[in-house]
Amino acid sequence: MKLATFLPPGSDVPHAGEVRDDRVVAFSAAPEPDGVRARLASGDRTPAAGADWALAEVALLAPVQQPRAIFGIGLNYAAHAAEGGREAPEQPIVFMKLPSASVPPSGPVVRPAVVRRLDYEAELVVVLGSDGQIAGFAVADDVSARDLQRRESQWTRAKGADTFCPWGPWITTVDELSVEQAEDLRIRSWVNGEPRQDSRTSDLIFGCEALVAFLRETCTLAPGDLILTGTPSGVGAYMDPRRFLDPGDVVRIEIERLGAIEHPIA
Amino acid sequence: MKLATFLPPGSDVPHAGEVRDDRVVAFSAAPEPDGVRARLASGDRTPAAGADWALAEVALLAPVQQPRAIFGIGLNYAAHAAEGGREAPEQPIVFMKLPSASVPPSGPVVRPAVVRRLDYEAELVVVLGSDGQIAGFAVADDVSARDLQRRESQWTRAKGADTFCPWGPWITTVDELSVEQAEDLRIRSWVNGEPRQDSRTSDLIFGCEALVAFLRETCTLAPGDLILTGTPSGVGAYMDPRRFLDPGDVVRIEIERLGAIEHPIA
Repeated sequence: MKLATFLPPGSDVPHAGEVRDDRVVAFSAAPEPDGVRARLASGDRTPAAGADWALAEVALLAPVQQPRAIFGIGLNYAAHAAEGGREAPEQPIVFMKLPSASVPPSGPVVRPAVVRRLDYEAELVVVLGSDGQIAGFAVADDVSARDLQRRESQWTRAKGADTFCPWGPWITTVDELSVEQAEDLRIRSWVNGEPRQDSRTSDLIFGCEALVAFLRETCTLAPGDLILTGTPSGVGAYMDPRRFLDPGDVVRIEIERLGAIEHPIA
Repeated sequence: MKLATFLPPGSDVPHAGEVRDDRVVAFSAAPEPDGVRARLASGDRTPAAGADWALAEVALLAPVQQPRAIFGIGLNYAAHAAEGGREAPEQPIVFMKLPSASVPPSGPVVRPAVVRRLDYEAELVVVLGSDGQIAGFAVADDVSARDLQRRESQWTRAKGADTFCPWGPWITTVDELSVEQAEDLRIRSWVNGEPRQDSRTSDLIFGCEALVAFLRETCTLAPGDLILTGTPSGVGAYMDPRRFLDPGDVVRIEIERLGAIEHPIA
């Protein structure tokens, strides 16, 4: 099942629904701003039977608008660690992005005035259900301020700034795509149409279940929590010459079977 | 005003109230699990006029039970940076603790099975109101797993584990204690009655307003967000020989005019 949160045409109240082919079907006539998180928690996968619209007609929002916790994983593809001149980590590097980093798959991402070196990171997202179980998968840009990341030993500001986590376009649940299948998908990114990253999630150093287990050693996970599993090689900071994102640039990230997100920089 | 969240005798539903001398006065007859956050957001400081109990009769909870964001600041006292053999930072070091780290001022703090070197950190807490303004102050233990902190470059697990943020005992708002006054208070900690830390908040490298401004460069702050402002020297990791916390130990932290918290290790 593909779980989406969206604004129907002419509405400014979020609805929860299911994406089928190129249409989105509401679960109920009533708005459900938190309906996707409720279904992640309950495990209810009853097919949607409400009103439906063409995907092109609605505005997709972040599937869970304000996740309680957004975990990010650093250097989780060997080729990305290598492009930064680092060894692959012996265990996962875990940082947090703030709930206010979460924005719709269409962004926009706003570059803070204090940031000069803004970069993209295409990532597979693990979405948590109840009891620390993996409920599904999505696509995210783990937007990163390379200048802050270099100066500040803890990455809270560099990674967690407002709007630094556009994600979606929906959550593909494990009944449709297993963990094993999610760990063998093509993942790509483009900036202004120019290809930048092209890899496979099979290159992840620490897989989805290993990341969940590592986090659960210290933290109880909640429905709707996200784990951004790390990015493959090809980020702007390691191009020669380096290329950072400027206002007006458009980032597109696509993962096979999970869909694509595309957002401008404001 | 001193804002508290508490369970009245025989009740398991959180109430919001005001602490006056050794009594707590409910704002309303109805339970208000999120009443303190609502008052932080609204700025309403109308004196409580509901039922009242002796403080000794009630169970104090974390004043905001699940803060949206708990920021911690590393090495913000020169003497603590020095005891770890480090220079004072040029700008604040910002990490996050998870919402599930927040527990009542009486804890308990649970040491995860994966942690061997558990430590305390007495800290002044800045509590946010609306529009990124400082609403008040409290006391926290920034509980830290020194073994994870040493091994993992990002401190999410070392600092953000479940129960790693006992805080309270209540929030003393700025109408009662100004920012200037909060930056000149005696701060002390004890383990099993033995004095460990004894300093003053006037030794903070980055003051409360500077920390808020630094965070706001990248992040919108919300009512009930916390900033743990850093700890003075005297933590267990830098004693000779080092001394860590074991189950059964009791940590007490007191800040002049803000009260004391005291929690066991489970």
